[in-house]
Amino acid sequence: MLIITYIAVVASAISGALEARKNEMDIVGAVTIAFATAFGGGTIRDLLLGRTPVFWVLDPGLTIAAFVFGALSYYRLDRLSKTLFTVVDAIGLGLFSVLGATYTLQLELSPIVAVLMGVVTGVFGGVLRDLFCNRIPKIFRHNTTLYATSSFIGTCLFVLFIRLDMDHLLASTTSAGVIFILRLAAVRFRMTLPKP
Amino acid sequence: MLIITYIAVVASAISGALEARKNEMDIVGAVTIAFATAFGGGTIRDLLLGRTPVFWVLDPGLTIAAFVFGALSYYRLDRLSKTLFTVVDAIGLGLFSVLGATYTLQLELSPIVAVLMGVVTGVFGGVLRDLFCNRIPKIFRHNTTLYATSSFIGTCLFVLFIRLDMDHLLASTTSAGVIFILRLAAVRFRMTLPKP
Amino acid sequence: MLIITYIAVVASAISGALEARKNEMDIVGAVTIAFATAFGGGTIRDLLLGRTPVFWVLDPGLTIAAFVFGALSYYRLDRLSKTLFTVVDAIGLGLFSVLGATYTLQLELSPIVAVLMGVVTGVFGGVLRDLFCNRIPKIFRHNTTLYATSSFIGTCLFVLFIRLDMDHLLASTTSAGVIFILRLAAVRFRMTLPKP
Repeated sequence: MLIITYIAVVASAISGALEARKNEMDIVGAVTIAFATAFGGGTIRDLLLGRTPVFWVLDPGLTIAAFVFGALSYYRLDRLSKTLFTVVDAIGLGLFSVLGATYTLQLELSPIVAVLMGVVTGVFGGVLRDLFCNRIPKIFRHNTTLYATSSFIGTCLFVLFIRLDMDHLLASTTSAGVIFILRLAAVRFRMTLPKP
Repeated sequence: MLIITYIAVVASAISGALEARKNEMDIVGAVTIAFATAFGGGTIRDLLLGRTPVFWVLDPGLTIAAFVFGALSYYRLDRLSKTLFTVVDAIGLGLFSVLGATYTLQLELSPIVAVLMGVVTGVFGGVLRDLFCNRIPKIFRHNTTLYATSSFIGTCLFVLFIRLDMDHLLASTTSAGVIFILRLAAVRFRMTLPKP
Repeated sequence: MLIITYIAVVASAISGALEARKNEMDIVGAVTIAFATAFGGGTIRDLLLGRTPVFWVLDPGLTIAAFVFGALSYYRLDRLSKTLFTVVDAIGLGLFSVLGATYTLQLELSPIVAVLMGVVTGVFGGVLRDLFCNRIPKIFRHNTTLYATSSFIGTCLFVLFIRLDMDHLLASTTSAGVIFILRLAAVRFRMTLPKP
Protein backbone atom coordinates (compact mmCIF):
# COMPACT_ATOMS: atom_id res chain seq x y z
CA MET A 1 0.00 0.00 0.00
CA LEU A 2 2.69 2.46 1.08
CA ILE A 3 4.76 1.53 -1.97
CA ILE A 4 1.83 2.23 -4.29
CA THR A 5 1.23 5.60 -2.59
CA TYR A 6 4.82 6.52 -3.30
CA ILE A 7 4.49 5.36 -6.92
CA ALA A 8 1.40 7.52 -7.37
CA VAL A 9 3.06 10.56 -5.75
CA VAL A 10 6.19 10.15 -7.85
CA ALA A 11 4.17 9.76 -11.05
CA SER A 12 2.20 12.93 -10.30
CA ALA A 13 5.35 14.83 -9.40
CA ILE A 14 6.99 13.83 -12.69
CA SER A 15 3.90 14.85 -14.66
CA GLY A 16 3.84 18.21 -12.89
CA ALA A 17 7.50 18.93 -13.45
CA LEU A 18 7.35 18.11 -17.17
CA GLU A 19 4.28 20.33 -17.53
CA ALA A 20 6.16 23.14 -15.81
CA ARG A 21 9.06 22.82 -18.26
CA LYS A 22 6.66 23.02 -21.20
CA ASN A 23 5.43 26.33 -19.74
CA GLU A 24 8.97 27.76 -19.57
CA MET A 25 9.15 27.68 -15.79
CA ASP A 26 12.38 27.43 -13.81
CA ILE A 27 13.13 24.74 -11.22
CA VAL A 28 11.16 26.60 -8.51
CA GLY A 29 8.08 26.44 -10.71
CA ALA A 30 8.78 22.80 -11.54
CA VAL A 31 9.05 21.71 -7.92
CA THR A 32 5.97 23.74 -6.93
CA ILE A 33 3.89 22.27 -9.75
CA ALA A 34 5.22 18.81 -8.84
CA PHE A 35 4.02 19.32 -5.25
CA ALA A 36 0.67 20.71 -6.38
CA THR A 37 0.04 17.78 -8.71
CA ALA A 38 1.14 15.14 -6.21
CA PHE A 39 -0.45 16.56 -3.05
CA GLY A 40 -3.19 18.90 -4.32
CA GLY A 41 -6.12 16.49 -4.27
CA GLY A 42 -5.36 15.05 -0.85
CA THR A 43 -4.66 18.50 0.55
CA ILE A 44 -8.03 19.89 -0.54
CA ARG A 45 -9.75 16.80 0.88
CA ASP A 46 -7.95 17.20 4.22
CA LEU A 47 -8.78 20.92 4.41
CA LEU A 48 -12.47 20.39 3.63
CA LEU A 49 -12.74 17.60 6.19
CA GLY A 50 -10.67 19.39 8.83
CA ARG A 51 -7.96 16.70 8.94
CA THR A 52 -5.08 19.03 9.74
CA PRO A 53 -2.09 19.18 9.64
CA VAL A 54 -2.59 17.84 6.10
CA PHE A 55 -1.24 14.40 5.26
CA TRP A 56 2.08 15.27 3.62
CA VAL A 57 3.06 17.58 6.47
CA LEU A 58 3.02 14.49 8.68
CA ASP A 59 5.15 12.33 6.33
CA PRO A 60 8.29 14.21 5.22
CA GLY A 61 9.32 11.16 3.14
CA LEU A 62 6.56 12.00 0.65
CA THR A 63 7.78 15.58 0.47
CA ILE A 64 11.33 14.48 -0.25
CA ALA A 65 10.17 12.01 -2.91
CA ALA A 66 8.12 14.68 -4.70
CA PHE A 67 10.97 17.17 -4.47
CA VAL A 68 13.69 14.82 -5.74
CA PHE A 69 11.68 13.30 -8.58
CA GLY A 70 10.25 16.68 -9.56
CA ALA A 71 13.72 18.23 -9.77
CA LEU A 72 15.27 15.19 -11.50
CA SER A 73 12.61 14.96 -14.18
CA TYR A 74 12.80 18.71 -14.80
CA TYR A 75 16.52 18.55 -15.52
CA ARG A 76 17.08 15.01 -16.77
CA LEU A 77 13.94 13.57 -18.28
CA ASP A 78 13.40 14.52 -21.88
CA ARG A 79 10.10 12.83 -22.33
CA LEU A 80 8.14 10.02 -20.84
CA SER A 81 6.61 7.17 -22.78
CA LYS A 82 2.99 8.32 -23.04
CA THR A 83 1.64 4.81 -22.48
CA LEU A 84 3.75 4.23 -19.38
CA PHE A 85 2.64 7.57 -18.02
CA THR A 86 -1.04 6.90 -18.61
CA VAL A 87 -0.75 3.54 -16.86
CA VAL A 88 1.04 4.87 -13.79
CA ASP A 89 -1.30 7.85 -13.64
CA ALA A 90 -4.34 5.54 -13.78
CA ILE A 91 -2.93 3.50 -10.86
CA GLY A 92 -2.62 6.75 -8.93
CA LEU A 93 -6.15 7.83 -9.86
CA GLY A 94 -7.62 4.57 -8.57
CA LEU A 95 -5.63 4.49 -5.37
CA PHE A 96 -6.10 8.14 -4.44
CA SER A 97 -9.85 7.95 -5.07
CA VAL A 98 -10.25 4.94 -2.77
CA LEU A 99 -8.04 6.55 -0.11
CA GLY A 100 -10.11 9.74 -0.17
CA ALA A 101 -13.36 7.84 0.31
CA THR A 102 -11.83 5.71 3.08
CA TYR A 103 -10.76 8.72 5.14
CA THR A 104 -14.20 10.31 4.74
CA LEU A 105 -16.03 7.18 5.89
CA GLN A 106 -13.70 6.96 8.90
CA LEU A 107 -15.07 10.38 9.96
CA GLU A 108 -18.59 8.88 9.76
CA LEU A 109 -19.69 11.35 7.12
CA SER A 110 -22.36 10.53 4.54
CA PRO A 111 -21.63 8.14 1.62
CA ILE A 112 -22.38 10.95 -0.85
CA VAL A 113 -19.64 13.07 0.68
CA ALA A 114 -17.32 10.05 0.64
CA VAL A 115 -17.78 9.67 -3.11
CA LEU A 116 -17.19 13.40 -3.64
CA MET A 117 -14.02 13.36 -1.55
CA GLY A 118 -12.78 10.29 -3.42
CA VAL A 119 -13.13 12.11 -6.73
CA VAL A 120 -11.59 15.32 -5.31
CA THR A 121 -8.58 13.37 -4.01
CA GLY A 122 -8.18 11.60 -7.34
CA VAL A 123 -8.45 14.53 -9.72
CA PHE A 124 -7.72 17.87 -8.03
CA GLY A 125 -3.93 17.51 -8.21
CA GLY A 126 -4.21 17.82 -11.98
CA VAL A 127 -6.70 20.67 -11.65
CA LEU A 128 -4.31 22.68 -9.47
CA ARG A 129 -1.42 21.93 -11.87
CA ASP A 130 -3.47 23.39 -14.72
CA LEU A 131 -4.51 26.46 -12.71
CA PHE A 132 -0.86 27.24 -11.92
CA CYS A 133 -0.07 26.83 -15.63
CA ASN A 134 -2.82 29.37 -16.38
CA ARG A 135 -5.23 27.29 -18.43
CA ILE A 136 -8.66 25.74 -18.06
CA PRO A 137 -8.19 22.38 -16.31
CA LYS A 138 -7.81 19.56 -18.87
CA ILE A 139 -10.28 17.24 -17.19
CA PHE A 140 -13.06 19.83 -17.59
CA ARG A 141 -12.79 19.97 -21.38
CA HIS A 142 -14.97 18.23 -23.98
CA ASN A 143 -12.39 15.75 -25.22
CA THR A 144 -11.57 14.34 -21.77
CA THR A 145 -11.60 10.55 -21.82
CA LEU A 146 -13.53 9.67 -18.65
CA TYR A 147 -11.07 10.82 -16.02
CA ALA A 148 -13.20 12.13 -13.15
CA THR A 149 -15.96 9.81 -14.37
CA SER A 150 -13.84 6.66 -13.88
CA SER A 151 -12.98 7.89 -10.40
CA PHE A 152 -16.67 8.60 -9.70
CA ILE A 153 -17.91 5.15 -10.79
CA GLY A 154 -15.16 3.29 -8.92
CA THR A 155 -15.66 5.33 -5.76
CA CYS A 156 -19.43 4.74 -5.85
CA LEU A 157 -18.70 1.00 -6.07
CA PHE A 158 -16.25 1.23 -3.18
CA VAL A 159 -18.72 3.01 -0.90
CA LEU A 160 -21.37 0.45 -1.84
CA PHE A 161 -19.00 -2.43 -1.05
CA ILE A 162 -18.20 -0.95 2.37
CA ARG A 163 -21.92 -0.46 3.13
CA LEU A 164 -22.38 -4.15 2.31
CA ASP A 165 -19.66 -4.96 4.87
CA MET A 166 -17.24 -6.30 2.32
CA ASP A 167 -13.66 -6.77 3.54
CA HIS A 168 -11.87 -3.42 3.28
CA LEU A 169 -8.80 -4.66 1.41
CA LEU A 170 -10.92 -6.53 -1.12
CA ALA A 171 -13.24 -3.54 -1.62
CA SER A 172 -10.24 -1.21 -2.08
CA THR A 173 -8.39 -3.32 -4.63
CA THR A 174 -11.53 -4.14 -6.63
CA SER A 175 -12.64 -0.50 -6.82
CA ALA A 176 -9.17 0.83 -7.61
CA GLY A 177 -8.95 -1.88 -10.28
CA VAL A 178 -12.27 -0.81 -11.80
CA ILE A 179 -11.09 2.81 -11.97
CA PHE A 180 -7.79 1.71 -13.52
CA ILE A 181 -9.43 -0.42 -16.21
CA LEU A 182 -12.19 2.13 -16.97
CA ARG A 183 -9.68 4.90 -17.43
CA LEU A 184 -7.41 2.86 -19.70
CA ALA A 185 -10.39 1.62 -21.73
CA ALA A 186 -11.63 5.21 -22.09
CA VAL A 187 -8.23 6.35 -23.36
CA ARG A 188 -7.96 3.38 -25.75
CA PHE A 189 -11.46 3.75 -27.22
CA ARG A 190 -11.66 7.57 -26.93
CA MET A 191 -14.75 7.42 -24.73
CA THR A 192 -16.01 10.89 -23.77
CA LEU A 193 -19.12 12.24 -22.09
CA PRO A 194 -22.11 13.44 -24.17
CA LYS A 195 -22.21 17.11 -25.14
CA PRO A 196 -25.31 19.21 -24.47
CA MET B 1 -34.43 30.40 5.79
CA LEU B 2 -33.49 26.90 4.66
CA ILE B 3 -35.59 27.31 1.54
CA ILE B 4 -33.83 30.56 0.65
CA THR B 5 -30.44 28.90 1.19
CA TYR B 6 -31.44 26.22 -1.30
CA ILE B 7 -32.66 28.85 -3.77
CA ALA B 8 -29.35 30.69 -3.52
CA VAL B 9 -27.34 27.47 -3.94
CA VAL B 10 -29.42 26.37 -6.93
CA ALA B 11 -29.13 29.80 -8.57
CA SER B 12 -25.35 29.77 -8.17
CA ALA B 13 -25.11 26.20 -9.45
CA ILE B 14 -27.09 27.09 -12.57
CA SER B 15 -24.94 30.16 -13.21
CA GLY B 16 -21.78 28.05 -12.83
CA ALA B 17 -22.99 25.30 -15.15
CA LEU B 18 -24.00 27.74 -17.90
CA GLU B 19 -20.65 29.50 -17.61
CA ALA B 20 -18.92 26.12 -17.97
CA ARG B 21 -20.82 25.37 -21.16
CA LYS B 22 -19.82 28.71 -22.63
CA ASN B 23 -16.20 27.69 -22.00
CA GLU B 24 -16.63 24.39 -23.91
CA MET B 25 -16.38 22.23 -20.81
CA ASP B 26 -17.95 18.79 -20.48
CA ILE B 27 -20.38 17.76 -17.75
CA VAL B 28 -17.53 17.12 -15.26
CA GLY B 29 -16.43 20.71 -15.70
CA ALA B 30 -20.01 21.93 -15.46
CA VAL B 31 -20.71 20.14 -12.18
CA THR B 32 -17.37 21.22 -10.70
CA ILE B 33 -17.95 24.86 -11.63
CA ALA B 34 -21.51 24.57 -10.28
CA PHE B 35 -20.12 23.37 -6.94
CA ALA B 36 -17.41 26.03 -6.89
CA THR B 37 -19.91 28.82 -7.56
CA ALA B 38 -22.49 27.56 -5.06
CA PHE B 39 -20.16 26.55 -2.21
CA GLY B 40 -16.95 28.49 -2.87
CA GLY B 41 -17.62 31.55 -0.72
CA GLY B 42 -18.90 29.63 2.30
CA THR B 43 -16.07 27.11 1.98
CA ILE B 44 -13.37 29.77 2.06
CA ARG B 45 -15.09 31.40 5.05
CA ASP B 46 -15.26 28.08 6.92
CA LEU B 47 -11.61 27.28 6.17
CA LEU B 48 -10.38 30.71 7.31
CA LEU B 49 -12.42 30.51 10.52
CA GLY B 50 -11.57 26.86 11.20
CA ARG B 51 -15.21 25.69 11.00
CA THR B 52 -14.48 22.21 9.61
CA PRO B 53 -15.78 19.95 8.18
CA VAL B 54 -17.06 22.74 5.91
CA PHE B 55 -20.80 23.38 5.80
CA TRP B 56 -21.81 21.45 2.67
CA VAL B 57 -19.97 18.33 3.84
CA LEU B 58 -22.41 18.24 6.75
CA ASP B 59 -25.55 18.67 4.58
CA PRO B 60 -25.55 16.21 1.64
CA GLY B 61 -28.89 17.64 0.49
CA LEU B 62 -27.11 20.80 -0.63
CA THR B 63 -24.58 18.71 -2.54
CA ILE B 64 -27.32 16.79 -4.33
CA ALA B 65 -29.19 20.00 -5.20
CA ALA B 66 -26.07 21.59 -6.69
CA PHE B 67 -25.25 18.40 -8.60
CA VAL B 68 -28.72 17.87 -10.04
CA PHE B 69 -29.38 21.47 -11.01
CA GLY B 70 -25.85 21.90 -12.35
CA ALA B 71 -26.20 18.83 -14.58
CA LEU B 72 -29.76 19.65 -15.67
CA SER B 73 -28.99 23.22 -16.66
CA TYR B 74 -25.87 22.09 -18.53
CA TYR B 75 -27.87 19.70 -20.70
CA ARG B 76 -31.34 21.24 -20.79
CA LEU B 77 -31.24 24.95 -20.16
CA ASP B 78 -30.53 26.99 -23.25
CA ARG B 79 -30.49 30.34 -21.62
CA LEU B 80 -31.79 32.00 -18.55
CA SER B 81 -33.78 35.24 -18.49
CA LYS B 82 -31.07 37.71 -17.53
CA THR B 83 -33.40 39.69 -15.31
CA LEU B 84 -34.60 36.61 -13.43
CA PHE B 85 -31.02 35.54 -12.95
CA THR B 86 -29.91 38.91 -11.62
CA VAL B 87 -32.79 38.93 -9.14
CA VAL B 88 -32.17 35.42 -7.80
CA ASP B 89 -28.44 36.06 -7.68
CA ALA B 90 -29.02 39.27 -5.68
CA ILE B 91 -31.15 37.34 -3.17
CA GLY B 92 -28.28 34.90 -2.80
CA LEU B 93 -25.74 37.69 -2.42
CA GLY B 94 -27.73 39.28 0.41
CA LEU B 95 -28.42 36.04 2.25
CA PHE B 96 -24.92 34.59 1.97
CA SER B 97 -23.36 37.87 3.15
CA VAL B 98 -25.54 38.01 6.26
CA LEU B 99 -24.93 34.30 6.99
CA GLY B 100 -21.15 34.77 6.73
CA ALA B 101 -21.21 37.67 9.19
CA THR B 102 -23.51 35.76 11.57
CA TYR B 103 -21.18 32.75 11.80
CA THR B 104 -18.19 35.02 12.41
CA LEU B 105 -19.93 36.91 15.23
CA GLN B 106 -20.92 33.57 16.80
CA LEU B 107 -17.19 32.81 17.13
CA GLU B 108 -16.81 36.14 18.99
CA LEU B 109 -14.40 37.52 16.43
CA SER B 110 -14.10 41.25 15.72
CA PRO B 111 -16.84 43.13 13.79
CA ILE B 112 -14.29 44.05 11.10
CA VAL B 113 -13.59 40.37 10.46
CA ALA B 114 -17.35 39.69 10.44
CA VAL B 115 -17.83 42.23 7.64
CA LEU B 116 -14.94 40.73 5.69
CA MET B 117 -16.28 37.20 6.06
CA GLY B 118 -19.73 38.36 4.99
CA VAL B 119 -18.33 39.78 1.78
CA VAL B 120 -16.14 36.70 1.20
CA THR B 121 -19.15 34.39 1.63
CA GLY B 122 -21.21 36.53 -0.73
CA VAL B 123 -18.78 36.99 -3.58
CA PHE B 124 -16.06 34.31 -3.63
CA GLY B 125 -18.19 31.67 -5.32
CA GLY B 126 -18.17 33.80 -8.44
CA VAL B 127 -14.47 34.52 -8.04
CA LEU B 128 -13.63 30.79 -7.95
CA ARG B 129 -15.91 30.18 -10.96
CA ASP B 130 -13.97 32.78 -12.94
CA LEU B 131 -10.58 31.39 -11.84
CA PHE B 132 -11.56 27.89 -13.05
CA CYS B 133 -12.69 29.47 -16.34
CA ASN B 134 -9.24 31.07 -16.63
CA ARG B 135 -10.12 34.75 -16.59
CA ILE B 136 -9.77 37.71 -14.25
CA PRO B 137 -12.74 37.61 -11.84
CA LYS B 138 -15.62 39.68 -13.20
CA ILE B 139 -16.31 41.48 -9.92
CA PHE B 140 -12.77 42.90 -9.91
CA ARG B 141 -13.17 44.71 -13.24
CA HIS B 142 -13.89 48.40 -13.87
CA ASN B 143 -17.41 47.98 -15.19
CA THR B 144 -18.67 45.99 -12.19
CA THR B 145 -21.98 47.38 -10.94
CA LEU B 146 -21.51 47.44 -7.14
CA TYR B 147 -21.42 43.71 -6.42
CA ALA B 148 -18.94 43.32 -3.56
CA THR B 149 -19.77 46.91 -2.58
CA SER B 150 -23.46 46.14 -2.02
CA SER B 151 -22.45 43.16 0.09
CA PHE B 152 -19.98 45.33 2.03
CA ILE B 153 -22.48 48.09 2.83
CA GLY B 154 -25.23 45.66 3.84
CA THR B 155 -22.89 43.60 5.99
CA CYS B 156 -21.61 46.73 7.76
CA LEU B 157 -25.23 47.63 8.52
CA PHE B 158 -25.91 44.11 9.80
CA VAL B 159 -22.94 44.13 12.16
CA LEU B 160 -23.98 47.57 13.41
CA PHE B 161 -27.55 46.36 14.03
CA ILE B 162 -26.29 43.37 16.02
CA ARG B 163 -23.99 45.60 18.10
CA LEU B 164 -27.06 47.73 18.85
CA ASP B 165 -28.80 44.55 20.09
CA MET B 166 -31.41 44.57 17.37
CA ASP B 167 -33.43 41.38 16.99
CA HIS B 168 -31.42 38.94 14.86
CA LEU B 169 -34.15 38.07 12.39
CA LEU B 170 -35.03 41.72 11.83
CA ALA B 171 -31.37 42.68 11.41
CA SER B 172 -30.83 39.82 8.92
CA THR B 173 -33.81 40.56 6.72
CA THR B 174 -33.23 44.31 6.71
CA SER B 175 -29.55 43.96 5.78
CA ALA B 176 -30.13 41.28 3.15
CA GLY B 177 -32.88 43.52 1.74
CA VAL B 178 -30.51 46.49 1.57
CA ILE B 179 -27.95 44.38 -0.31
CA PHE B 180 -30.64 43.13 -2.67
CA ILE B 181 -31.97 46.61 -3.47
CA LEU B 182 -28.54 48.21 -3.76
CA ARG B 183 -27.37 45.53 -6.18
CA LEU B 184 -30.47 45.79 -8.39
CA ALA B 185 -30.31 49.59 -8.35
CA ALA B 186 -26.65 49.45 -9.33
CA VAL B 187 -27.43 47.13 -12.26
CA ARG B 188 -30.36 49.29 -13.34
CA PHE B 189 -28.50 52.61 -13.18
CA ARG B 190 -25.06 51.26 -14.14
CA MET B 191 -23.48 52.46 -10.92
CA THR B 192 -19.76 51.65 -10.76
CA LEU B 193 -16.91 52.63 -8.45
CA PRO B 194 -14.65 55.62 -9.29
CA LYS B 195 -11.49 54.92 -11.30
CA PRO B 196 -8.13 56.18 -10.09
CA MET C 1 9.09 42.75 15.34
CA LEU C 2 5.46 43.87 15.16
CA ILE C 3 6.51 47.02 13.34
CA ILE C 4 8.42 45.00 10.75
CA THR C 5 5.39 42.72 10.25
CA TYR C 6 3.29 45.78 9.52
CA ILE C 7 5.91 47.12 7.12
CA ALA C 8 5.93 43.81 5.25
CA VAL C 9 2.13 43.63 5.10
CA VAL C 10 1.86 47.22 3.90
CA ALA C 11 4.54 46.68 1.25
CA SER C 12 2.74 43.59 -0.06
CA ALA C 13 -0.61 45.36 -0.03
CA ILE C 14 0.81 48.26 -2.06
CA SER C 15 2.37 45.87 -4.56
CA GLY C 16 -0.92 44.02 -4.93
CA ALA C 17 -2.98 47.18 -5.42
CA LEU C 18 -0.65 48.57 -8.08
CA GLU C 19 -0.70 45.23 -9.89
CA ALA C 20 -4.51 45.31 -9.81
CA ARG C 21 -4.57 48.77 -11.38
CA LYS C 22 -2.29 47.60 -14.17
CA ASN C 23 -4.86 44.89 -14.89
CA GLU C 24 -7.71 47.40 -15.17
CA MET C 25 -9.40 46.32 -11.98
CA ASP C 26 -11.60 48.55 -9.85
CA ILE C 27 -11.08 49.27 -6.15
CA VAL C 28 -12.74 45.98 -5.13
CA GLY C 29 -10.18 44.10 -7.18
CA ALA C 30 -7.38 46.27 -5.82
CA VAL C 31 -8.28 45.67 -2.18
CA THR C 32 -8.78 41.94 -2.77
CA ILE C 33 -5.43 41.58 -4.52
CA ALA C 34 -3.84 43.66 -1.74
CA PHE C 35 -5.21 41.22 0.85
CA ALA C 36 -4.19 38.18 -1.20
CA THR C 37 -0.64 39.47 -1.60
CA ALA C 38 -0.25 40.51 2.03
CA PHE C 39 -1.94 37.55 3.73
CA GLY C 40 -1.86 34.76 1.11
CA GLY C 41 1.36 33.04 2.16
CA GLY C 42 0.60 33.05 5.87
CA THR C 43 -2.98 31.97 5.23
CA ILE C 44 -1.95 28.91 3.20
CA ARG C 45 0.59 28.03 5.91
CA ASP C 46 -2.02 28.33 8.65
CA LEU C 47 -4.54 26.22 6.70
CA LEU C 48 -2.03 23.45 5.96
CA LEU C 49 -0.90 23.34 9.59
CA GLY C 50 -4.41 23.62 11.01
CA ARG C 51 -3.70 26.91 12.85
CA THR C 52 -7.22 28.33 12.55
CA PRO C 53 -8.71 30.92 12.69
CA VAL C 54 -5.91 32.13 10.43
CA PHE C 55 -3.55 34.80 11.74
CA TRP C 56 -5.09 37.97 10.24
CA VAL C 57 -8.55 37.04 11.46
CA LEU C 58 -7.17 37.35 14.97
CA ASP C 59 -5.51 40.76 14.39
CA PRO C 60 -7.95 43.24 12.78
CA GLY C 61 -5.21 45.90 12.81
CA LEU C 62 -3.44 44.03 10.02
CA THR C 63 -6.66 43.89 8.02
CA ILE C 64 -7.21 47.63 8.38
CA ALA C 65 -3.62 48.39 7.39
CA ALA C 66 -3.88 46.25 4.24
CA PHE C 67 -7.24 47.80 3.38
CA VAL C 68 -6.19 51.41 3.87
CA PHE C 69 -2.83 51.15 2.13
CA GLY C 70 -4.28 49.06 -0.68
CA ALA C 71 -7.03 51.61 -1.34
CA LEU C 72 -4.71 54.61 -0.96
CA SER C 73 -2.09 53.29 -3.34
CA TYR C 74 -4.76 52.33 -5.88
CA TYR C 75 -6.09 55.88 -6.01
CA ARG C 76 -3.12 58.03 -5.07
CA LEU C 77 0.16 56.30 -5.85
CA ASP C 78 1.27 56.73 -9.41
CA ARG C 79 4.32 54.61 -9.21
CA LEU C 80 6.72 53.37 -6.63
CA SER C 81 10.49 53.70 -6.84
CA LYS C 82 11.45 50.24 -8.03
CA THR C 83 14.51 50.11 -5.81
CA LEU C 84 12.59 51.09 -2.70
CA PHE C 85 9.98 48.49 -3.49
CA THR C 86 12.53 45.71 -4.01
CA VAL C 87 14.18 46.56 -0.69
CA VAL C 88 10.95 46.60 1.33
CA ASP C 89 9.74 43.45 -0.41
CA ALA C 90 13.02 41.68 0.41
CA ILE C 91 12.61 42.64 4.09
CA GLY C 92 9.14 41.08 3.97
CA LEU C 93 10.42 37.96 2.23
CA GLY C 94 13.04 37.38 4.93
CA LEU C 95 10.73 38.06 7.83
CA PHE C 96 7.76 36.06 6.57
CA SER C 97 9.99 33.06 5.77
CA VAL C 98 11.46 33.00 9.27
CA LEU C 99 8.02 33.44 10.85
CA GLY C 100 6.61 30.54 8.83
CA ALA C 101 9.40 28.22 9.93
CA THR C 102 9.07 29.35 13.55
CA TYR C 103 5.36 28.53 13.73
CA THR C 104 5.98 25.11 12.18
CA LEU C 105 8.74 24.23 14.65
CA GLN C 106 6.46 25.31 17.52
CA LEU C 107 4.05 22.56 16.42
CA GLU C 108 6.97 20.07 16.69
CA LEU C 109 6.76 19.16 13.02
CA SER C 110 9.78 17.99 11.04
CA PRO C 111 12.53 20.47 10.01
CA ILE C 112 11.84 19.64 6.35
CA VAL C 113 8.25 20.79 6.73
CA ALA C 114 9.45 23.89 8.60
CA VAL C 115 11.62 24.89 5.63
CA LEU C 116 8.73 24.27 3.22
CA MET C 117 6.33 26.35 5.31
CA GLY C 118 8.89 29.14 5.56
CA VAL C 119 9.12 29.31 1.78
CA VAL C 120 5.33 29.06 1.37
CA THR C 121 4.80 31.92 3.83
CA GLY C 122 7.41 34.02 2.06
CA VAL C 123 6.36 33.55 -1.54
CA PHE C 124 2.72 32.44 -1.89
CA GLY C 125 1.25 35.92 -1.45
CA GLY C 126 2.81 36.85 -4.78
CA VAL C 127 1.69 33.55 -6.32
CA LEU C 128 -1.95 34.20 -5.36
CA ARG C 129 -1.69 37.79 -6.65
CA ASP C 130 -0.56 36.45 -10.03
CA LEU C 131 -3.30 33.79 -10.14
CA PHE C 132 -5.98 36.43 -9.53
CA CYS C 133 -4.42 38.52 -12.32
CA ASN C 134 -4.71 35.48 -14.60
CA ARG C 135 -1.07 34.82 -15.43
CA ILE C 136 1.58 32.23 -14.64
CA PRO C 137 3.15 33.23 -11.29
CA LYS C 138 6.21 35.43 -11.84
CA ILE C 139 8.45 33.54 -9.42
CA PHE C 140 7.99 30.33 -11.45
CA ARG C 141 9.41 31.81 -14.65
CA HIS C 142 12.92 31.39 -16.10
CA ASN C 143 14.12 34.94 -15.51
CA THR C 144 13.28 34.99 -11.79
CA THR C 145 16.18 36.32 -9.77
CA LEU C 146 16.39 33.87 -6.83
CA TYR C 147 13.19 34.71 -5.00
CA ALA C 148 11.97 31.41 -3.58
CA THR C 149 15.59 30.24 -3.61
CA SER C 150 16.73 33.03 -1.27
CA SER C 151 13.87 32.16 1.04
CA PHE C 152 14.78 28.46 0.85
CA ILE C 153 18.46 28.96 1.69
CA GLY C 154 17.75 31.37 4.55
CA THR C 155 15.05 29.16 6.03
CA CYS C 156 17.35 26.10 5.88
CA LEU C 157 19.94 28.13 7.79
CA PHE C 158 17.33 29.20 10.33
CA VAL C 159 16.15 25.65 10.99
CA LEU C 160 19.80 24.54 11.34
CA PHE C 161 20.49 27.36 13.83
CA ILE C 162 17.48 26.38 15.93
CA ARG C 163 18.54 22.71 15.92
CA LEU C 164 21.95 23.89 17.18
CA ASP C 165 20.14 25.67 20.04
CA MET C 166 21.12 29.12 18.90
CA ASP C 167 19.24 32.01 20.55
CA HIS C 168 15.93 32.49 18.70
CA LEU C 169 16.23 36.22 18.12
CA LEU C 170 19.79 35.89 16.83
CA ALA C 171 18.82 32.99 14.54
CA SER C 172 15.82 34.94 13.19
CA THR C 173 17.66 38.15 12.42
CA THR C 174 20.66 36.38 10.90
CA SER C 175 18.51 34.21 8.62
CA ALA C 176 16.19 37.03 7.59
CA GLY C 177 19.32 39.08 6.89
CA VAL C 178 20.77 36.33 4.70
CA ILE C 179 17.52 36.14 2.70
CA PHE C 180 17.45 39.93 2.35
CA ILE C 181 21.05 40.14 1.11
CA LEU C 182 20.77 37.11 -1.19
CA ARG C 183 17.65 38.48 -2.81
CA LEU C 184 19.13 41.95 -3.37
CA ALA C 185 22.38 40.47 -4.69
CA ALA C 186 20.38 38.26 -7.07
CA VAL C 187 18.45 41.26 -8.41
CA ARG C 188 21.62 43.33 -8.74
CA PHE C 189 23.65 40.65 -10.53
CA ARG C 190 20.74 39.04 -12.38
CA MET C 191 21.36 35.65 -10.79
CA THR C 192 18.88 33.02 -12.02
CA LEU C 193 18.62 29.25 -11.69
CA PRO C 194 20.05 26.93 -14.39
CA LYS C 195 17.73 25.89 -17.21
CA PRO C 196 17.31 22.22 -18.14
